[in-house]
Amino acid sequence: MDKVINGKLLREEKLALFSEKIKSIPDKLKLVVIQVGENAASDVYVRNKRNVCERVGILFKHLKYDSITEDELVSVISGLNNDSSVTGILVQLPLPEGINTENVINSISPLKDVDGLTIKNVGALFSGKPRLVPCTALGVMSILDNIDANLEGSNVVVVGRSKLVGLPLVALLLRENATVTVCHSKTVNLKEKTSQADILIVAVGNKEFIKGDFVKKDAIVIDVGINRDSGKLYGDCAFDEVVGKCKYITPVPGGVGPLTITYLINNVIEAYHLQKKD
Amino acid sequence: MDKVINGKLLREEKLALFSEKIKSIPDKLKLVVIQVGENAASDVYVRNKRNVCERVGILFKHLKYDSITEDELVSVISGLNNDSSVTGILVQLPLPEGINTENVINSISPLKDVDGLTIKNVGALFSGKPRLVPCTALGVMSILDNIDANLEGSNVVVVGRSKLVGLPLVALLLRENATVTVCHSKTVNLKEKTSQADILIVAVGNKEFIKGDFVKKDAIVIDVGINRDSGKLYGDCAFDEVVGKCKYITPVPGGVGPLTITYLINNVIEAYHLQKKD
Repeated sequence: MDKVINGKLLREEKLALFSEKIKSIPDKLKLVVIQVGENAASDVYVRNKRNVCERVGILFKHLKYDSITEDELVSVISGLNNDSSVTGILVQLPLPEGINTENVINSISPLKDVDGLTIKNVGALFSGKPRLVPCTALGVMSILDNIDANLEGSNVVVVGRSKLVGLPLVALLLRENATVTVCHSKTVNLKEKTSQADILIVAVGNKEFIKGDFVKKDAIVIDVGINRDSGKLYGDCAFDEVVGKCKYITPVPGGVGPLTITYLINNVIEAYHLQKKD
Repeated sequence: MDKVINGKLLREEKLALFSEKIKSIPDKLKLVVIQVGENAASDVYVRNKRNVCERVGILFKHLKYDSITEDELVSVISGLNNDSSVTGILVQLPLPEGINTENVINSISPLKDVDGLTIKNVGALFSGKPRLVPCTALGVMSILDNIDANLEGSNVVVVGRSKLVGLPLVALLLRENATVTVCHSKTVNLKEKTSQADILIVAVGNKEFIKGDFVKKDAIVIDVGINRDSGKLYGDCAFDEVVGKCKYITPVPGGVGPLTITYLINNVIEAYHLQKKD
């Protein structure tokens, strides 16, 4: 295994696996992605989702609204909840101002909530019974699994406490018996914390925020950040400084990113099985 | 403020406050506690709950079943969910073998779930919108508030990851911008972790498990453990060793314990308001 983790390679392995699973399902799976307003980054993300869905044989429907009220949006989602041909529903974030994101997300049936953001799915995760879990967190766990990272008893430091990455990782890492420290923008002396990590996971969205001296020798570094600057992508870690010290590191791009959409596919499959069991 | 925190005194202050709140509510509040099977410790806990409820003017109903099936129990709870005279429902744990605790707990309406253990209430807490939160975790937070503990940026180490104490505290402490480390039975070199804590919260149920050298000088130590040995109560900390080093410590008994039932009263009041808003 190379020191610089090849997320694209792992994506291909996982997608091959998920494609086989999809082939063995008698019904056609379908993902509906809802987008509101203009956002160039969202356009890219939605296109990437479509590409991967089409590759593995999941029907993809893109509902794009220039403008829609919260009530109308909830009503659209309610229709999709009741449409048995729809396996998964994803609301592309951010939503425009004036729409309460939380209300919209929680109007999605927890059985179709492939982003794992509804209160019921968050509650299931923190009650020790994960159902649909945010894709990026699953992607990080799959990378750790792939390099045979020994989680039990390891010191894992998670920098960032978002609902999409940091918080679900806390639940998933505790399930694997890691000792978990959660750091964030208000943490005092961050370097002291990160430099004790056997496994350091950074998801803050701050270009090259983690310097070489923030990292313990031979640590595993998972960089979830995607920061654009002058048309180029950067992670949350200063890659050139960190790569010489660590045991493993995920690059940006090509590390965690490719796994995120891969685990969206996983969640569409999971959603199908949850609905069948229901 | 004394170094040894007087939980009973804080309980009296809080109960006086909650009694006033209850007086200002036009409806009569009512808590129903369900107990199944014989358990001497549960009998004591239920009696204590009754005493405090009666003191503050909350109607108390104790449903005790020698034996009942899971379906029958869920049906009883369903009736209580639909009974508008019932403000709060609490299932005294543990339930006997053969009954799925999770199914029973999740049959309680989240608006009446005064223990804060239903998936919806756990999800709300970890989605940043706490509604009904486990009483012991709230009791710990009230103690920290009472001694003006500076949580923002503090290193808080929580030992124990239970649904009742450790996990909800992670969410509550992160909301206050603490840096939080979760340790547990699989943590390697626990002493190294605990001795870095500005605030050390221990909830493992292991008599005098935390020794003097586990604690940093001038730390705040919150001992949630209640361990019985030869008719005497002990905490999870070796009190005599720790008390000389720390800034504050909660004794056992008389520390966190009195706050737990106090915050059950808080939750009955909260449940009332949630139901009115619904």
